[in-house]
Amino acid sequence: MPIARIILGMSFAPEDIVGSIAATLTTAAFFPQALKSWKTRDLSGVSLPMYSLFTVGVAMWLVYGIILGSWPIIIANVITLGLASLVLALKVMHK
Amino acid sequence: MPIARIILGMSFAPEDIVGSIAATLTTAAFFPQALKSWKTRDLSGVSLPMYSLFTVGVAMWLVYGIILGSWPIIIANVITLGLASLVLALKVMHK
Repeated sequence: MPIARIILGMSFAPEDIVGSIAATLTTAAFFPQALKSWKTRDLSGVSLPMYSLFTVGVAMWLVYGIILGSWPIIIANVITLGLASLVLALKVMHK
Repeated sequence: MPIARIILGMSFAPEDIVGSIAATLTTAAFFPQALKSWKTRDLSGVSLPMYSLFTVGVAMWLVYGIILGSWPIIIANVITLGLASLVLALKVMHK
């Protein structure tokens, strides 16, 4: 077992690398949206049904991670849940 | 093996049920956003960096599904990629 695998406690199979990049991007994506919505309070083009469904869906992904005991899934979805909830709350307040 | 598992070719462990609901919700969420953006052409509150990062991220999830040979992951991400790409294209055209 390579030392990096021991230190980081994670595997580096191709699918793990691709999955990690994918998870990082789809989680990070909500930072600029949350920041824009917070600063501008312009939620006119943002869909309320989208953020309603998405927030519940991400909460389910969090439950999924908890069942599996997977910290990467838990952390990614806690962050996404926080950001999506903020956009949803701003949309509800400013629609 | 229960007959339903043979017919549907999928398992029904708790995490599979929760994961399936989660995937359905986070994919379905982009339908109302894509529809709203298409009909209203109002993209003012929608973040360009969000959809740029998200679209690349979903494409990576698609690659992840292809590497794993997982049809549920492939199908969910093909749909999400199409919808997110549409919102991204509308944002680029109407910003």
